[in-house]
Amino acid sequence: MSEAAQPSTSQSPVKIANLVEFIARALAALGVPPEDARVVAGLMAESDARGGDAHGVFRLPQYVKQIQGGAVNPRPNIQVIENRAGTALLDGDNALGHLVMKRAADLAIEKARQCGVGWAGTRHSNHAGPAQLYPRMAAAQDMIGMYFCVGNTNLVPPWGGIEVLLSTNPIAIAVPGSRHGAIALDMATTNTAFGKIRLKAQRGEAMPEGWMIDREGKPLTDPKRASEGFLLPIGGPKGYGLALMIGLLAGTLNGAAFGRDVIDYTVDSKTPSNTGQSIIAVDIAAFADVPAFKAKVDEVWDVMKSCPTLPGVDEVRLPGERSEQIYVERMAHGVPLNEGQRKILDELADRLGVERLG
Amino acid sequence: MSEAAQPSTSQSPVKIANLVEFIARALAALGVPPEDARVVAGLMAESDARGGDAHGVFRLPQYVKQIQGGAVNPRPNIQVIENRAGTALLDGDNALGHLVMKRAADLAIEKARQCGVGWAGTRHSNHAGPAQLYPRMAAAQDMIGMYFCVGNTNLVPPWGGIEVLLSTNPIAIAVPGSRHGAIALDMATTNTAFGKIRLKAQRGEAMPEGWMIDREGKPLTDPKRASEGFLLPIGGPKGYGLALMIGLLAGTLNGAAFGRDVIDYTVDSKTPSNTGQSIIAVDIAAFADVPAFKAKVDEVWDVMKSCPTLPGVDEVRLPGERSEQIYVERMAHGVPLNEGQRKILDELADRLGVERLG
Repeated sequence: MSEAAQPSTSQSPVKIANLVEFIARALAALGVPPEDARVVAGLMAESDARGGDAHGVFRLPQYVKQIQGGAVNPRPNIQVIENRAGTALLDGDNALGHLVMKRAADLAIEKARQCGVGWAGTRHSNHAGPAQLYPRMAAAQDMIGMYFCVGNTNLVPPWGGIEVLLSTNPIAIAVPGSRHGAIALDMATTNTAFGKIRLKAQRGEAMPEGWMIDREGKPLTDPKRASEGFLLPIGGPKGYGLALMIGLLAGTLNGAAFGRDVIDYTVDSKTPSNTGQSIIAVDIAAFADVPAFKAKVDEVWDVMKSCPTLPGVDEVRLPGERSEQIYVERMAHGVPLNEGQRKILDELADRLGVERLG
Repeated sequence: MSEAAQPSTSQSPVKIANLVEFIARALAALGVPPEDARVVAGLMAESDARGGDAHGVFRLPQYVKQIQGGAVNPRPNIQVIENRAGTALLDGDNALGHLVMKRAADLAIEKARQCGVGWAGTRHSNHAGPAQLYPRMAAAQDMIGMYFCVGNTNLVPPWGGIEVLLSTNPIAIAVPGSRHGAIALDMATTNTAFGKIRLKAQRGEAMPEGWMIDREGKPLTDPKRASEGFLLPIGGPKGYGLALMIGLLAGTLNGAAFGRDVIDYTVDSKTPSNTGQSIIAVDIAAFADVPAFKAKVDEVWDVMKSCPTLPGVDEVRLPGERSEQIYVERMAHGVPLNEGQRKILDELADRLGVERLG
């Protein structure tokens, strides 16, 4: 501990390969089989590489707590419990969510190759990182990917209500292009993510109106009072409706938690979360000539880019464009981690008795 | 014309059966085969019955203009041009959109019964009424339905832009329950619909901030200046991203119009619109025991309803709840039409030489 408390000597970016190795050895130390540990580590590091900083190695201490607490099973037996030509339901046996979702995405892609479309759902899964990871797997196979999941912390009341019964239930869709790569949307159904509110609190800044309301329905702008209010869904009742439908598709349909059943894994690392997710793959070849389609997607990209802009706006962006730029940059030069983040990971390494992050 | 200009003598609601008969005879007078005319009339009247007033008989004069102008083909040969076990692509041959979408929904449902999931896309289709009609067809068969379409008028720039390259591209999802019926979301990806802006203009009321901005990015609240501005997507860049992805899924994937190709059918009734839509059906039986699932959906409904509310809010509503109440009411007592609406339909009847609405 005394060692870990020292400031890290280097502030240079961490190479992706080192991040993968580090996460893999931390998980292996907890009894996760080495091949599984590498799959999860690869996806977590990809999250960091894509700029999803709050969903990558940042979550490792929490996953460790969940394995140690019993909520997450390090040696799961993931099983397909319902199976049709185009669909599958997987029981994740409380595995790390990345393992369950990787398996689900592979299955959806395989089924789409047979049937034109494949839909796989999960139950007894867990937090699986940023939503975009899984539809991007389909896009890499010349398919369109779509993903829904039930978030692991309820933060949003139904529209007009004051009890948090919904999470930020995200949706992600990836469509492969050619010259420009995939157009990939990854969005929560709320105006902001909770992480951004924490950041405002740390910086002592006020939140803009529209992020949160208090229990009287008034705008809440002091991030230190966040626990007294609720996140606002995009478009008010529309975002509520979307979050609810995603909950039904990814939770209820799969026999997973939704509504009052949702376990807040940030405070409870003992109770299995029964997280539910859904991944859909659509084979482009079932609808179109694949190269012609991808050229059309490039054209859509170019048309959006050619749009004249509002004063003060440099250019229109495509969904996933920024994430792809960060990805290229970080794959080449590594992920920047600040001193605090380094320290947390060093302490974790010491506690687990594994080599620190290189 | 002189007759039609007289105010209608009765302001009592129009029975649904009369509405169906009237629409069917108007379409038949234009050369639409009687069985096709009845399918379209039934779906248009269902739209009115469900409270989607801007998407029901209100659109009849426009459809008539499109048939007379040549954009819509009254005697189409709708064909399945791509076919896999779980997917189909339909060429609508410029038919009335309801015909194409009814066929697509039937196919998706049939394929879902075989494969667990079915996905049907359309090209050379047309405006098909309110989005919720088609996923509700799946829900009525104990399936989950999901629908995306490219709207027929571009009203939204990409986020930060000032050229309207996107429509309000809606999404609709219906999930069957038992005691409470289906939970059915039907939402545009903009904060408001253009119809509401027209209504504000008619009433001389200001629009709230958040509906529109002008070309400088400033809030636009005078509905008479609507043509100088743009609709705002829900959640800003998120709604833009969602509208874009829906355009790729329902337009580009199907070889249908999207972006600068979109024909504004409210001003051009000669050029085929090449409208694209996508309908997905998921067989609940491929994932769960159907009655148990529907009971779970009821439970979700009850949990949301049990949520304590903000000051001034009576109760939380479920997506589709209000539409279902209106449906029950209007199926029993008919659809209210005001004098102006009656007059337009009477004039149309006279022009087409068919019996007026009873």
